[in-house]
Amino acid sequence: MTMAGYTNFHADKISSFIEQLFLKIGCNPIDAANIAKVLVTAELRGIPSHGLMRVTDYIALWKAGRLNSKPDVRIIHETPSTAVIDGNQCAGMIAGLKAMGTAMQKAKAVGTGWVSVQNSNHFGIAGYYAMMALKEDMIGICMTNANPLVAPTFSVDRLLGTNPIAVAVPAGTEPPFVADFATTPIARGKLDLMHKKGLKAPFGFVQDKTGKPSDNPNILTDGGAILPLGGDREHGSHKGYCLGAIVDIFSAALSGAGFGPFVPPSVAYLPLIKDAPGLGTGHFFGAMRIDAFRPAIEFKATMDQWIQTFRKAKPAEGYEKVLIPGDIERELEEKYAVEGIPVLNSIWEKVNECGKEFDIILEVEKV
Amino acid sequence: MTMAGYTNFHADKISSFIEQLFLKIGCNPIDAANIAKVLVTAELRGIPSHGLMRVTDYIALWKAGRLNSKPDVRIIHETPSTAVIDGNQCAGMIAGLKAMGTAMQKAKAVGTGWVSVQNSNHFGIAGYYAMMALKEDMIGICMTNANPLVAPTFSVDRLLGTNPIAVAVPAGTEPPFVADFATTPIARGKLDLMHKKGLKAPFGFVQDKTGKPSDNPNILTDGGAILPLGGDREHGSHKGYCLGAIVDIFSAALSGAGFGPFVPPSVAYLPLIKDAPGLGTGHFFGAMRIDAFRPAIEFKATMDQWIQTFRKAKPAEGYEKVLIPGDIERELEEKYAVEGIPVLNSIWEKVNECGKEFDIILEVEKV
Repeated sequence: MTMAGYTNFHADKISSFIEQLFLKIGCNPIDAANIAKVLVTAELRGIPSHGLMRVTDYIALWKAGRLNSKPDVRIIHETPSTAVIDGNQCAGMIAGLKAMGTAMQKAKAVGTGWVSVQNSNHFGIAGYYAMMALKEDMIGICMTNANPLVAPTFSVDRLLGTNPIAVAVPAGTEPPFVADFATTPIARGKLDLMHKKGLKAPFGFVQDKTGKPSDNPNILTDGGAILPLGGDREHGSHKGYCLGAIVDIFSAALSGAGFGPFVPPSVAYLPLIKDAPGLGTGHFFGAMRIDAFRPAIEFKATMDQWIQTFRKAKPAEGYEKVLIPGDIERELEEKYAVEGIPVLNSIWEKVNECGKEFDIILEVEKV
Repeated sequence: MTMAGYTNFHADKISSFIEQLFLKIGCNPIDAANIAKVLVTAELRGIPSHGLMRVTDYIALWKAGRLNSKPDVRIIHETPSTAVIDGNQCAGMIAGLKAMGTAMQKAKAVGTGWVSVQNSNHFGIAGYYAMMALKEDMIGICMTNANPLVAPTFSVDRLLGTNPIAVAVPAGTEPPFVADFATTPIARGKLDLMHKKGLKAPFGFVQDKTGKPSDNPNILTDGGAILPLGGDREHGSHKGYCLGAIVDIFSAALSGAGFGPFVPPSVAYLPLIKDAPGLGTGHFFGAMRIDAFRPAIEFKATMDQWIQTFRKAKPAEGYEKVLIPGDIERELEEKYAVEGIPVLNSIWEKVNECGKEFDIILEVEKV
């Protein structure tokens, strides 16, 4: 069923469109296919803010000379269980795939692998990389810093990104546990949506330029900031601030990427900061081989028991069931694979405008 | 200066009292000294809920045969970068110190070390173990599961503990970054304090037995539950639920400890669950050698810059300054080392009651 204002597209159709676009800007076929795969996976999992609509930002960054379509992504330092990768200003997916692959190789050899990345760009959804570990019976971990929108507790300055954390854990007969969440109560994209719809934001999402609570979803354009997870100090925003800071330190201080306020914007219309310390956006990846701790079959039986225990928990009044992290995204992925991916018509028009410059069109078809 | 209702004690005095007590129940001198060290460090850092008052719980668990004062704490599985440790029902500090030491040894050898622990008990403050890594120019990570008080989002069942996460990061001229926080808006101890003072709890801390928001700090005694960090679904409690779940999985599913609702109570007056899967309380430890990623001197210069950038952020109206994780605890540690540790008189009386059984008294002295 297609929702009003949306058109449904087959995943393959969107993937092919994105792939062609990145080929046109000079990516090699493998990189172009990988970039498309990560963006389409976000669409399939119901996270369109990290999907098709992002291509216009990547193309604009490439035009501005801030994204390298022919990067030399390479390991610049390593030990048996660690590595640092220089992304060479790549689209973040290229560094992300190499980094997670490296972490998994190291986990095969010595039990775990941990890779920090410098000089990268936005890499799509963190969950994609964490989930790569599942097929090898490993736990996958992924985090990234992002351009600064979040004020630390007690401050008005925007010093942290929404810095997400993703953790994927294999199970046996149950589907895997897949957590992928920003370390803020809300993502930037959802604030924009509220503003467009003329809605107020619930208190606890943002503050104004003086640090007072605000319900204006557009307050970021007037010096406001997103709050860390927890909202205010009383409700533990200092814990959200800690989480965002840890993601930033692992992603940037370990790799030499830009940290905190020095993470480059992921959109070309915001200028780069002059003389910023560090190189580009930073990410952090981890892989832990299950059988480096315990036979995988035993662990997976425990995870099945864990998932079943939580799934059968008594729901609160007015709620139907308790969810396991990853449930919603997995169910959408199954649905959209059959019904097609709903794309907002305004986004479809915008990406086609971008595509037309390169003689590529995302055509409507009967899904 | 001594606050009304409190008596100040030298750290050494408290430490000696605790040490003697654990010697009396059969601990060897090294274990007794280590247990005292971890508990007194909590007092010094202003976290009395994890300090002296805990000794009565440990002694009661020992009396009930649920804490082994002569444990054989040993590695039961390992790879170059990982290990699983069986705590043999020890006081958690004994397993914690061995596990963090093992993680650091492995980090020396292959860059990082990761250790999951089964069959342990409450280990005090997570930050203690994370901070052990600092002197070796490593990042220290520590987490633990805990007895179930927290309901996952949409549920009324208490399936998770307040499951804390601690991360300690070395800096250069600046003091280290030390985050140590529960994955809930509030700790159990603070709710008890509010109840004793006849105060209401702010909404967002707890829910009643039907899952409705509650401001009753004593609601846990009537089927209520603590909420995950974020408070409600709208403000991201599903993210706090994810965090608590990740801590539980790393601590228990990787080690074979009791998970979620099957974590044994850390107090003897609550019975053990019959036929619970898994063994005891679980913990998880990590150590990452800085120079496995980047020369330590470069990293520390970046951390100094990070800390200075955040410290000089503009405060929100009504606030004096932005804090770096660890600031408050470090300042208290300096103050209490000089002025003595303030101990609530009722706690002092309670631990002396326990001590008297073993002919040990914590005497008042002029600090």
